[in-house]
Amino acid sequence: MAQLLVNTFVNYFRYMGTSSGGRGTGAPVTLADVARAAGVSVATASKALNGRAQVRESTRVKVREAAAALSFTPNFFAQALNSQRTGTIGMVTSDLDNRFVLPVLLGAEDAFGSGSLSVLLADARDDALREQLHLQNLLTRRVDGLLIVGRTTNPRPPAPVLADVPVVYVYAPSTDPTDASFTPNNVQAGRLAAEHLIAKGRRRIALVNGESSYAASRDRAAGVLAATQAAGLELVGGASLYGQWGEAWGRDCARLLVRGDETVDAIVAGSDHIARGVLDALRDEGRSVPGDVAVIGFDNWDVLVRESRPTLTSVDMNLEQLGRAAAQHLVDAIGGSTSAGVTYGAVRVHERESTG
Amino acid sequence: MAQLLVNTFVNYFRYMGTSSGGRGTGAPVTLADVARAAGVSVATASKALNGRAQVRESTRVKVREAAAALSFTPNFFAQALNSQRTGTIGMVTSDLDNRFVLPVLLGAEDAFGSGSLSVLLADARDDALREQLHLQNLLTRRVDGLLIVGRTTNPRPPAPVLADVPVVYVYAPSTDPTDASFTPNNVQAGRLAAEHLIAKGRRRIALVNGESSYAASRDRAAGVLAATQAAGLELVGGASLYGQWGEAWGRDCARLLVRGDETVDAIVAGSDHIARGVLDALRDEGRSVPGDVAVIGFDNWDVLVRESRPTLTSVDMNLEQLGRAAAQHLVDAIGGSTSAGVTYGAVRVHERESTG
Repeated sequence: MAQLLVNTFVNYFRYMGTSSGGRGTGAPVTLADVARAAGVSVATASKALNGRAQVRESTRVKVREAAAALSFTPNFFAQALNSQRTGTIGMVTSDLDNRFVLPVLLGAEDAFGSGSLSVLLADARDDALREQLHLQNLLTRRVDGLLIVGRTTNPRPPAPVLADVPVVYVYAPSTDPTDASFTPNNVQAGRLAAEHLIAKGRRRIALVNGESSYAASRDRAAGVLAATQAAGLELVGGASLYGQWGEAWGRDCARLLVRGDETVDAIVAGSDHIARGVLDALRDEGRSVPGDVAVIGFDNWDVLVRESRPTLTSVDMNLEQLGRAAAQHLVDAIGGSTSAGVTYGAVRVHERESTG
Repeated sequence: MAQLLVNTFVNYFRYMGTSSGGRGTGAPVTLADVARAAGVSVATASKALNGRAQVRESTRVKVREAAAALSFTPNFFAQALNSQRTGTIGMVTSDLDNRFVLPVLLGAEDAFGSGSLSVLLADARDDALREQLHLQNLLTRRVDGLLIVGRTTNPRPPAPVLADVPVVYVYAPSTDPTDASFTPNNVQAGRLAAEHLIAKGRRRIALVNGESSYAASRDRAAGVLAATQAAGLELVGGASLYGQWGEAWGRDCARLLVRGDETVDAIVAGSDHIARGVLDALRDEGRSVPGDVAVIGFDNWDVLVRESRPTLTSVDMNLEQLGRAAAQHLVDAIGGSTSAGVTYGAVRVHERESTG
């Protein structure tokens, strides 16, 4: 059987082996050429290039050097036909036009990107039907596993993956607890933000939050509440102040807050974007930051936090690390590991002037 | 010969055809199962699924319905072995952690994403060696073509692609004029920005620009100069004021400008990020926008332009359209078209309050 496989390989190599340059003649380099150059049989050359155990290390090195010298490129598709694996991961994003996707992609690409795994990318445009078509297409291409990246951290129904390949959800967790999901720990993010302000001696804390339809807002509010209650504090306004994800809401809400209550000494903003509006309103109202009011945001988005006046303390959601962990989990699952459940990625406060 | 190909197909289908679900038994669905369900021969079923012309439309529909009902997934690798094409495009980005890459990716994915083409993604991290390894890996996987996305619009040396596959450069054009490149028209962007201000009656225009090491800054400056000179105007300060890509530079430069020259009535900012700093400084200095000073940026980046005070007029670089055009060109090149050279993508002014 092993011999049969090797022979099959040899035939495929003969059929499809090619040069990707080097000789410049245009004639494809075959495995036979490599074997001849290395002074071994074709079967041995094939075994050596495919990492089979029966080949001595010195032979393996000799064959690989010959292959490199000849710019021999074993044919990927021929290999795939002889292996259960294609070395390809499907990554389905729900909305590429979403800045949260980029660091997740980057981390995943980093984990996959050693050269042994390639990423097939598909964007579902936040459309379930399009997602289904992409999944079908990726499965036709025999991906070894699927990474499904959500647009928000709101839990989502499991994707209709009808083949037996591992799937890992990232950013938006699956509602099915037997799936493996990776999502940032927004409750912890809220807790850390409030604890940071409390540690700075702030007692009159308000939460100018994003849209309440987002799990991220509600989870951050739960964390802020847990930390303030643990310290025996009540939020200014009594609860999370939900609004919009943007500067205008941050400005409007902060203005009302400080005009309505002179004692406010800290504001947790639901995002860095909201925080920028909060900073502008406090400036307009003549409140110094952090002297009168400390401000903290979420996301640690460099374009918003690094050159604001003052620079903005923010909770970093570690999205690149999240993507890397999800990708690593997928690699492990392809290798046979079967753990499941939601993993909440660690977050951390990045302190700058606004709470200094 | 045609018959031989069909037979080869049938064999591969038999060998590799699989179920991606539906029956739930785990036994692979073969082409023979599909043929039986459709009441046709296996050869006819193969022809029907592969879109060959010899099959009547009614037969094609019958076979496709049977295939769908059985969740039959033709094996991609078997198909690839029988075709010169793999239906896969390699996309090499130089820096995924770069917001300009995202819309380009989105546009390209849109052009490729009909289901017939898939995108293999690799990120070179702005590292020539890493790019070379990625290219080699992608060629091993027999991509039909390569899209190479740059980090800046600075021209770059051609990539070391040793195989005979079409390559299209996007954002960063290749320095080799026989390559096909797509890059935004930054000269035109500068010209349109200045013409927009001149049309609003502004005469004392300054250019608070980004870093001079970027082709984007220099090209935008050339466009601004061409338009102001054509209108018989001289830039305030005599030339483009090069600095940094950020708010702090925008604030510092705008403050010096309006303190030094009361007559400044318009500022072209080298990016939306710089423009945000310009707006803040004008506010601090008590200059109304656009009453006293009109402001225009570049990039039309929603997170910066839509909720600033006032909202920001900006030149949209149409990056998604650029990615789509580059991808379409690559598809044409794979089909045999051989046009080359640099295509400069159209840009347009998106007017908001800051020049209204």
